[in-house]
Amino acid sequence: MDGKDHDPIADLIVTYNELNSSFIEELHEEPSALEFMRFVARNTPFVVRGGAANWKATQTWTAEHLSNFLGDETVNVAVTPFGNADAPTIHPQTGSLVFAKPHEEDQPFSDFLAYVIHQEKTQGLRKSEVRYAQTQNDNLRQEYLSLYSHVPPTIPWARIALSSLSDQEAKPEAINLWIGNSLSTTALHKDNYENVYVQIRGRKHFVLLPPHCLPCVNESELKSGGYVRRQHQKTGGGDEEKGETGEEEGEGQKGGELELVMEKENDEETGKEKDVTVPFAIWDPDKPEENATRYSKLAEPMRVTLEEGDMLYLPAMWYHKVSQSCSQGGICVAVNYWYDMDFTGPLYPFTSFVRAVNQQQQKYHQ
Amino acid sequence: MDGKDHDPIADLIVTYNELNSSFIEELHEEPSALEFMRFVARNTPFVVRGGAANWKATQTWTAEHLSNFLGDETVNVAVTPFGNADAPTIHPQTGSLVFAKPHEEDQPFSDFLAYVIHQEKTQGLRKSEVRYAQTQNDNLRQEYLSLYSHVPPTIPWARIALSSLSDQEAKPEAINLWIGNSLSTTALHKDNYENVYVQIRGRKHFVLLPPHCLPCVNESELKSGGYVRRQHQKTGGGDEEKGETGEEEGEGQKGGELELVMEKENDEETGKEKDVTVPFAIWDPDKPEENATRYSKLAEPMRVTLEEGDMLYLPAMWYHKVSQSCSQGGICVAVNYWYDMDFTGPLYPFTSFVRAVNQQQQKYHQ
Repeated sequence: MDGKDHDPIADLIVTYNELNSSFIEELHEEPSALEFMRFVARNTPFVVRGGAANWKATQTWTAEHLSNFLGDETVNVAVTPFGNADAPTIHPQTGSLVFAKPHEEDQPFSDFLAYVIHQEKTQGLRKSEVRYAQTQNDNLRQEYLSLYSHVPPTIPWARIALSSLSDQEAKPEAINLWIGNSLSTTALHKDNYENVYVQIRGRKHFVLLPPHCLPCVNESELKSGGYVRRQHQKTGGGDEEKGETGEEEGEGQKGGELELVMEKENDEETGKEKDVTVPFAIWDPDKPEENATRYSKLAEPMRVTLEEGDMLYLPAMWYHKVSQSCSQGGICVAVNYWYDMDFTGPLYPFTSFVRAVNQQQQKYHQ
Repeated sequence: MDGKDHDPIADLIVTYNELNSSFIEELHEEPSALEFMRFVARNTPFVVRGGAANWKATQTWTAEHLSNFLGDETVNVAVTPFGNADAPTIHPQTGSLVFAKPHEEDQPFSDFLAYVIHQEKTQGLRKSEVRYAQTQNDNLRQEYLSLYSHVPPTIPWARIALSSLSDQEAKPEAINLWIGNSLSTTALHKDNYENVYVQIRGRKHFVLLPPHCLPCVNESELKSGGYVRRQHQKTGGGDEEKGETGEEEGEGQKGGELELVMEKENDEETGKEKDVTVPFAIWDPDKPEENATRYSKLAEPMRVTLEEGDMLYLPAMWYHKVSQSCSQGGICVAVNYWYDMDFTGPLYPFTSFVRAVNQQQQKYHQ
């Protein structure tokens, strides 16, 4: 390396920054399919302010309405101690950074929602476990099917634009409903989907980075674990907040505390047990000094807050960190549409190339 | 480097090849703006067979018609000994590979066209100088203005698709007319324009490579020179073909033989004269063993021949080598439309990144 001026990765990030704004483009009406396709071609996000203001969901989804509608139907809930579902987390015993997957359990919807709201409105419950309905498995057409008719079955401009020349219609690969409170944060990650994200209740705060910022996000192989709920200890235990959550526990909580259990798998070569690891970004643009790489400081994160009724186009492979604020009703509700991304063309191979060059650079710097 | 499997550049080329066809997509009617934009988004060429079949140009431009129309108006002609305008060329004295620019001179159009046709139809004239009307300076709206109304002023699907959200209309940056015979070849190069290329008379044979194939094309710093015509030698000289071209010389040729004169400039540091150099691809996909890099063999060139009335979308930054065959009338005529490319989004920075990484690799391999 001849220094920063001749570092291809640094030049890539700087050149992109010079040619592109780090402020998101704001539309005030939905784009045509062609206008949308121009953003897809540039792999560039935009927000449509008020684009979903007239949806039945936006008009009617209060906590009360949702509770009346879904009642005691059980839904899958992600449970974590800190709102850290699928997030880099300091392991409480070992002190090392690991990837923590949530404990998932079925809860009656009305109990789940009451817990979320009560926690949001009660400062003292900030340290109790956090619950988030966030199964990204097309849940709005599965367990929340009764709400599905309150949103459009597809986003017309995305459907038309992303369909192929052979007139094959682009259908949403998944439509996901997200219900939680301000204690849940989705850690910086990316998806191989074109994403239209729609805010229904509360506000969502996105921090966005384009795919080539991979060298900034410090993707690391983390040991992977998942929270499991210990059998309920009748003796109570030392958790201060536990008493206060007693009421919700009775309704929604199945048992005891959450324990982070690391995953193991068999090593085919040695036949012995080994840790399961996953590659994951450990740099947080909101704590830019921590876990930074030599390139992190060059990143110019794009920030956007979605208000109720706003729509975000989040292009394929963009990194996004998402935090949220609640409505006065104490909930945060969003719906997103995933469409298949196009793996032809330069974007996907180029992004893999950045990863490979970055890995090579890291080797030379070790 | 750990060998081919861990060479990021090789992986980039192979991954792209796996995900993309090396056969061009063929349409049989013009695309809509949206359909076109899908190709722009994928930075992928297509051909519209017969898309310009009904243009007045395609219907009427015979050699006779063009000659009648333009008559003795003078036009700018690129003159080279081998049809090698703007091409890597072995310097006849030094034997080294240099970049040769054509001699440019004004000639009466009817003389120019008669020379081109006569040469094409006369095997014996294959070694006489080659003339090509190929000024890429918007010549159809300048010196060939009288022909301009025979083609559309813009390509509607390109105009609509490439216009910006602010409704600023995309206008062709240049509309270029090309008239020559089968002795002219355009060497492999790329342009920072979106290009719609339309064949009017004869056939054009394109060899195409996507922008990330830069490491395959052996871009090298070549000393740059230009052909200049020597003052006519009354003694005649030893050129066998000279006698045969005498007739055309009287009409179209201004003087003596072409000499390749290298360009010099002042070195600001030393104050001395130095060679002017230009970076240029020296690998020829049609002679894949010559001037190859370690990556050339991984390239999968896309080949397409345009017939009369065909249109080609040549995406921004794609390498293209172009050779041609003549109509029965002995000419090859084409028109192309250049639209500004979009420098926002990932394509341009990514392509620069490939160049930088390639240069770094070359350093390590030296």
